[in-house]
Amino acid sequence: MKLTKQTLTERTEHIYDVIVVGGGAGGLSAGIYLQRYLLSSLIIDKGKARSFWMQELHNYLGLPPDTPGRSLLRQGKEHFLSLGGDLLDGYVEEILDEGETFAVRVKVGRHDSSYHPFRTKYLIAASGIIDYLPNLDHMRNVYDYAGYNLHVCLICDGYEMVDKKVGVFVNSLSSAEVVFSLGWFTPHITLFTQGLFEVTDELRQKLQEHGYELVETPIKQFLGEDHQMSGVELENGQVIQLEAGLISMGSKYHDDYLEKFNLEKQGENLVTDRMARTSHPRIFAIGDLKVGLNQVVIAAADGALAATQIWRDLRRTIGAKHQAKTLQPTSTT
Amino acid sequence: MKLTKQTLTERTEHIYDVIVVGGGAGGLSAGIYLQRYLLSSLIIDKGKARSFWMQELHNYLGLPPDTPGRSLLRQGKEHFLSLGGDLLDGYVEEILDEGETFAVRVKVGRHDSSYHPFRTKYLIAASGIIDYLPNLDHMRNVYDYAGYNLHVCLICDGYEMVDKKVGVFVNSLSSAEVVFSLGWFTPHITLFTQGLFEVTDELRQKLQEHGYELVETPIKQFLGEDHQMSGVELENGQVIQLEAGLISMGSKYHDDYLEKFNLEKQGENLVTDRMARTSHPRIFAIGDLKVGLNQVVIAAADGALAATQIWRDLRRTIGAKHQAKTLQPTSTT
Repeated sequence: MKLTKQTLTERTEHIYDVIVVGGGAGGLSAGIYLQRYLLSSLIIDKGKARSFWMQELHNYLGLPPDTPGRSLLRQGKEHFLSLGGDLLDGYVEEILDEGETFAVRVKVGRHDSSYHPFRTKYLIAASGIIDYLPNLDHMRNVYDYAGYNLHVCLICDGYEMVDKKVGVFVNSLSSAEVVFSLGWFTPHITLFTQGLFEVTDELRQKLQEHGYELVETPIKQFLGEDHQMSGVELENGQVIQLEAGLISMGSKYHDDYLEKFNLEKQGENLVTDRMARTSHPRIFAIGDLKVGLNQVVIAAADGALAATQIWRDLRRTIGAKHQAKTLQPTSTT
Repeated sequence: MKLTKQTLTERTEHIYDVIVVGGGAGGLSAGIYLQRYLLSSLIIDKGKARSFWMQELHNYLGLPPDTPGRSLLRQGKEHFLSLGGDLLDGYVEEILDEGETFAVRVKVGRHDSSYHPFRTKYLIAASGIIDYLPNLDHMRNVYDYAGYNLHVCLICDGYEMVDKKVGVFVNSLSSAEVVFSLGWFTPHITLFTQGLFEVTDELRQKLQEHGYELVETPIKQFLGEDHQMSGVELENGQVIQLEAGLISMGSKYHDDYLEKFNLEKQGENLVTDRMARTSHPRIFAIGDLKVGLNQVVIAAADGALAATQIWRDLRRTIGAKHQAKTLQPTSTT
């Protein structure tokens, strides 16, 4: 059930089989599988998964290509709750490993926050990432277009930019490399660095060879209407017309609560085995936090893998004989 | 477009970037990604993927849990065709490796069959498996219930059998082990061997310890109505009431066309790397053919992985600069 400040104290004595941190595509898929394995699970969601911002999921099998990300999330939450899963709006502050269980400290409420402990045998880290966006004086102006024709994912939305005049917004030399992959989809590319880093002669020459424009002046604002970005106005007043945009400025990883576990990483991403287990035997990581493609369908599949492996683990520990009766009360309340 | 006997000859001169063998969840997801990467792809489907038989997909994120498998497949086909992909009803008979390309020989039409060659740079094997069913005199009687409350997948449908009286239909000592996993969901289990193999004393004793019944007499027919199986009638006339069934008799792997490639396998399943590539650098395998869980969401994710890796391969070979214009004609015809 959806836990509230009033009802959540009923659960602070309960030991969950699994607490899932994050209610995006990965977390919800994991929750659905966990509940169907008759495991008791709690999804802690701080709201607004990365896919929440996607106006159209163009490549998720089974859904029409104009389905908003938030529709998938809403359906997933309903599905999870219908299976008796617990869902809590909250923010995971800290996790203590108690040996057989974890103690998870959750902040609930933005104002008048209260702090609650929950306990679980297993943990699934599904809290994802969020893209850094160009830092303008009026961020509202960025939000107006991000997720519409101002994209953050080349794999997802390269197709939406075919043969269009595209502005690419980057903040480092390495992030600028994305223009050459975008070149697969369109030759009309302008790279905006906003003067945030020094452009090397090598990059300058490569851009020229490909016929791409380079703009180093900071941006004042995006132009457009009805969520359709039509260009940018620079700090110097110059206006550049565009038909689409791609932001490539890195991502914030929502995994502070895992820091003390020193889990194995590759760059900023958690390393997992084929069943999504991290280097800690009772911590799984799914979706954008782990090494791999950042795609909704892959996060959903990760959720199935992690849930299934945890079920196998628990089946081995608890023994297989007739768990249904003992577990049913939890999953139907 | 949907190729017909009349139109397919237009394509026999074309070199596809990718031919996908199999139009189930994996193949369609791969096709959607491939077309969005502006690659030209042909899905060859012999019809009736394993998920086609599933009356309800209970655990696919984003779809209501009563969505039939065939709805997902229909949506996927529409989506793929809307992106300019080619789809052909046919059966892949043979594949020749020509070095840079494969020649794929396809049988079209069940009656008055004709044989057509197609060429492709990459191959995705997505032709899956199909479950062996109990072999009765009247197979119609099995089909009446299979996919309804006569299940073939414990991971998918264990939850549907909670605390029910379940018959488990097996054909070997190893396949009989599934009863002990089913024991997680229900204690009311009857194992039906139909006398197809010798039950060891060890298994007999273990069944007894768990309180499971054993029936070795062959089955005459399933009983029930409106696709709801309510029990079985044995050859000796005895009737046993049941509330659900689980078939565990192994699967036929649809991969004859790959035999000569001697791809690395683990048991009957193809071994792939993290991007779904087999031991042959231009052959990928996704879904139930490969090692891993046989789940719709996992097949769909595999499709995304294979398509993305092939795109990366081709980008490296062809070079990134402005493929859109040259590829557009193919993908919009």
